Amino acid sequence: MSEKEISIGLFGFGCVGQGLYDVLNHSQSLKANITTIGVKDHSKPRKIDASFFTFKKEDILKRDDLDVIVELIDDAEEAFRIVSTAMNNGVNVVTANKKMLAENFQKLYELQEQNNVALLYEGSAGGSIPIIRNLEEYYDNELLSSFRGILNGTCNYILSRMELESKDYSEILKDAQASGFAESNPWLDVAGFDTLYKTILLTVHSFGLILKPEQVLNLGIQNITFDDIVYAREKGLRIKLLGTGYKSGNEFRVYVMPHFVEKTDELYNVIYEYNGVEVEGAFSCKQTFVGKGAGSHPTGSAVLSDISALTYNYKYAYKKLRKLLNGKDKRVNGEQLDNNFSLKVYIRFREKEELKQLEILNIEEEYRSARTNYIVATVTLKSLFCLKGNKESKLFVCAV
Amino acid sequence: MSEKEISIGLFGFGCVGQGLYDVLNHSQSLKANITTIGVKDHSKPRKIDASFFTFKKEDILKRDDLDVIVELIDDAEEAFRIVSTAMNNGVNVVTANKKMLAENFQKLYELQEQNNVALLYEGSAGGSIPIIRNLEEYYDNELLSSFRGILNGTCNYILSRMELESKDYSEILKDAQASGFAESNPWLDVAGFDTLYKTILLTVHSFGLILKPEQVLNLGIQNITFDDIVYAREKGLRIKLLGTGYKSGNEFRVYVMPHFVEKTDELYNVIYEYNGVEVEGAFSCKQTFVGKGAGSHPTGSAVLSDISALTYNYKYAYKKLRKLLNGKDKRVNGEQLDNNFSLKVYIRFREKEELKQLEILNIEEEYRSARTNYIVATVTLKSLFCLKGNKESKLFVCAV
Repeated sequence: MSEKEISIGLFGFGCVGQGLYDVLNHSQSLKANITTIGVKDHSKPRKIDASFFTFKKEDILKRDDLDVIVELIDDAEEAFRIVSTAMNNGVNVVTANKKMLAENFQKLYELQEQNNVALLYEGSAGGSIPIIRNLEEYYDNELLSSFRGILNGTCNYILSRMELESKDYSEILKDAQASGFAESNPWLDVAGFDTLYKTILLTVHSFGLILKPEQVLNLGIQNITFDDIVYAREKGLRIKLLGTGYKSGNEFRVYVMPHFVEKTDELYNVIYEYNGVEVEGAFSCKQTFVGKGAGSHPTGSAVLSDISALTYNYKYAYKKLRKLLNGKDKRVNGEQLDNNFSLKVYIRFREKEELKQLEILNIEEEYRSARTNYIVATVTLKSLFCLKGNKESKLFVCAV
Repeated sequence: MSEKEISIGLFGFGCVGQGLYDVLNHSQSLKANITTIGVKDHSKPRKIDASFFTFKKEDILKRDDLDVIVELIDDAEEAFRIVSTAMNNGVNVVTANKKMLAENFQKLYELQEQNNVALLYEGSAGGSIPIIRNLEEYYDNELLSSFRGILNGTCNYILSRMELESKDYSEILKDAQASGFAESNPWLDVAGFDTLYKTILLTVHSFGLILKPEQVLNLGIQNITFDDIVYAREKGLRIKLLGTGYKSGNEFRVYVMPHFVEKTDELYNVIYEYNGVEVEGAFSCKQTFVGKGAGSHPTGSAVLSDISALTYNYKYAYKKLRKLLNGKDKRVNGEQLDNNFSLKVYIRFREKEELKQLEILNIEEEYRSARTNYIVATVTLKSLFCLKGNKESKLFVCAV
C-alpha cells in the first residue's frame, strides 16, 4: 500500500464538485490536489480562482500529468464520453453519475478490463453511505440473499414531510424545490429513475448481475396524495420508495416501488434526506446502513474516499460478476432477471377504467368514496411496466 | 490484487470457530482451507474429523506451510502468546479477541510494524458489522468527530427483554443464560468490560488514539432494576449501554455507560442481540450501521471477511495513529484522553450514604419513595471511576 501524491482533473464544479473541493481542503492525511477543473458555463461566478478552470474538455483529457479524472457533471452522455476517453487513455476515473453508470455498465466494465484502470463510484449510490465498497469487499464471500434501500433523498424528504406535517404532495414538492431538496424538474427523482439507476449498481455489486434500466420496473411517488399517507398512518405504517433485489431460486427479482414499511422495520425511522440500505446474508443476517443520501459534502466525502482508495491502487474486483461471466450460469443480459411473478399492492385510482391495463389476479379489498378509491390486490409485476415512466397515469401503486 | 489459495491454522473450535467453519464451507469464491485446528479439551465431542485437531499449540505455530493463523480462543493471555508468536514468525493473524487486543494494543501494533505482517480483527467489535474496516478505510480522510455504539449483544438483549416483557433484571438474565444469550458468568458483559474493549478498538480506528482499559470509565447494567425501565418508558426513552468517543477541543472523551436514548435516535430501535454504531464526520454527517452483534455465524462472517482481505494483501494502514505518533501532538499513553469533565446522570440508589463517594456538583431532581429513590444530577466523570468494576456498589447510573 504505497502512498503517492494525487493530481486530480475535475469535471464539473456544481454541488458535489464544490463539496469535494471543501472536503479535500480539510482532509488531514490525503495528499491530493485539484490541478484543473473543466466547466461549461463561461458566465457563472465561481468561488475559487479563474486559473483553475478550463472550458475545453480536451485541455484536461490530453494532459498526461493527472493521476485521476473525477467526473461530476450532470449530462450523462457527455459524462460517458469523458469517462470512456479517460479510461482509454489509461487514467483512473472516479464518478458519481449513476445515470451514466447504469446506462453504460457493460461497456464501462469492459473498459476497466481492457485498459486495466480503476473506475470507482461510491458517491453514485447511497450518498455518504459506503454501500458499494461494503458490498464489494465485505460481502464478497457471503451468500448475499437480498438488499432493499431508500436510495433517493428527494423522495424520502417529500414523503417524510407529507407525513410529519400532514400536507399534500404538491405543496411539499414546491417547498422542497425552493429549499434545494428537489430539482426544478424533479421527474427523474419522483418517478423512481434515480432509485432505479442506483438499484442497478447495487445489483451488480450484490449479485454480479448487470441489468439495463429498461429491464427493471420503477414506479415512483409522483401520484401520491395525502390520502395514501393517511391510509398508511392509520395502520402504523410509513410509505418509503425502495429499490430492492433478492434471490428467488436461481433467478433474481429486482424492482423499484413505493412500499409500506412497519414501525419495527429498520428503514421506518430513516426520514427526510437520509438514505438507508438493508442487506441480508445467509450468515451475517440483516445489516443496515443509514446516512445522508445526498448533498454537497456527504457526496463529496464519498468521492474523496474513492480518491483515497486509489492511493493504494484499489479497484473493484467484481468477483461475483467475474465468476458469473466465466461460469455456466450467465447472468448478464438480464437472462437471470425474474419479472414473471405477482405481488400484493395497494392501488389508489380515480376511475376504475384506469385499472384495466393491469393484470389483476385477485382483489382482496376495495374501498370507494367520493374522495378516493383504492384496492388491495395481487397483480403481475409485468403488467405494472405500463406505468413505468408514464406521465399520463394517475395511479399510485404501493407494495403491501 | 493477486488471489492465492489460503491455508488456515485455527485456534479454538467454540462458537465462533465452528461458525467460521460453516461459513467457509459455504463460501462461493474464497479459496481457503482450514488445515489444522488447535484445541484444549481432549474429551469434547466435535462435529468434524479428529485428524483436524491437535492439542499442542506448537504443532501449529511451528508449521511453515500456513498462510494465516486464526485465533478464536477464550483465554486472552494464551491468545496473546499465540498471536505474538505467530506474528514474530512472520505469519498474518486474524483474531476476534477484543480483550486480548484492548489489553495489548500498543505491543500488537508494534509487532505488526516490526514483522511487517497483518493483524486483522473485524470480528472483535460489532459482530457482523464491518465497523473497523469502515472506520479505517472509508473515514480515513474524514474529520471524524464522534462514535457511539451499542456494542454488547448480551446487554442489549437483556435491556430489550426487560422493557418489552416488563420483567426484572434477574429473571431475564437467568433466561438469557438458559438460551445462550448470556454467559454462565456474565460479569464481563453486564459490567461493561466487553463494551470497553470494543470501545478501545473503535477509538484506535476513529481517532488514532491508543488507550488502556484502566484509563477508560466503564459502567454497566448489573444494577439495573425494572424501576429504571419504567422511568425511561414513561418519558418515551429506552436505556442502552453505549460505548462512546468524541472530540472535545484537542482532547477526546471516551467512556462506557448506560444512556437514555430517544425515539428519534437511530439506536432506539436497535434491540435484542443487535448492535448499532453511529459515527459522525464533519462532512459525511451521521452514519449508522446496524447488524447482529454476536453469534456463531455473524462473527464467523466477519472473521471470513478478514481472511478474504488477506488474499489481496490487505493490512490496516493505521494512518491516523501513524500521523499522531509522528506528529507533535502525541495521543498515545492517554495523554489526550479527557476525563476531567462533568455530565448529567440519573442515579438510582437505596441509601443516600451510597452517593457520598461521588462528586456531585448539582442535583436537579430528587425522588424518594418506599420502593425506590433516584436523583438526576451533574457529577464529575472522574468520581464515577469508583464504580468501575465495583461488585459491592448497588448504584445504577445512566447518562441523561
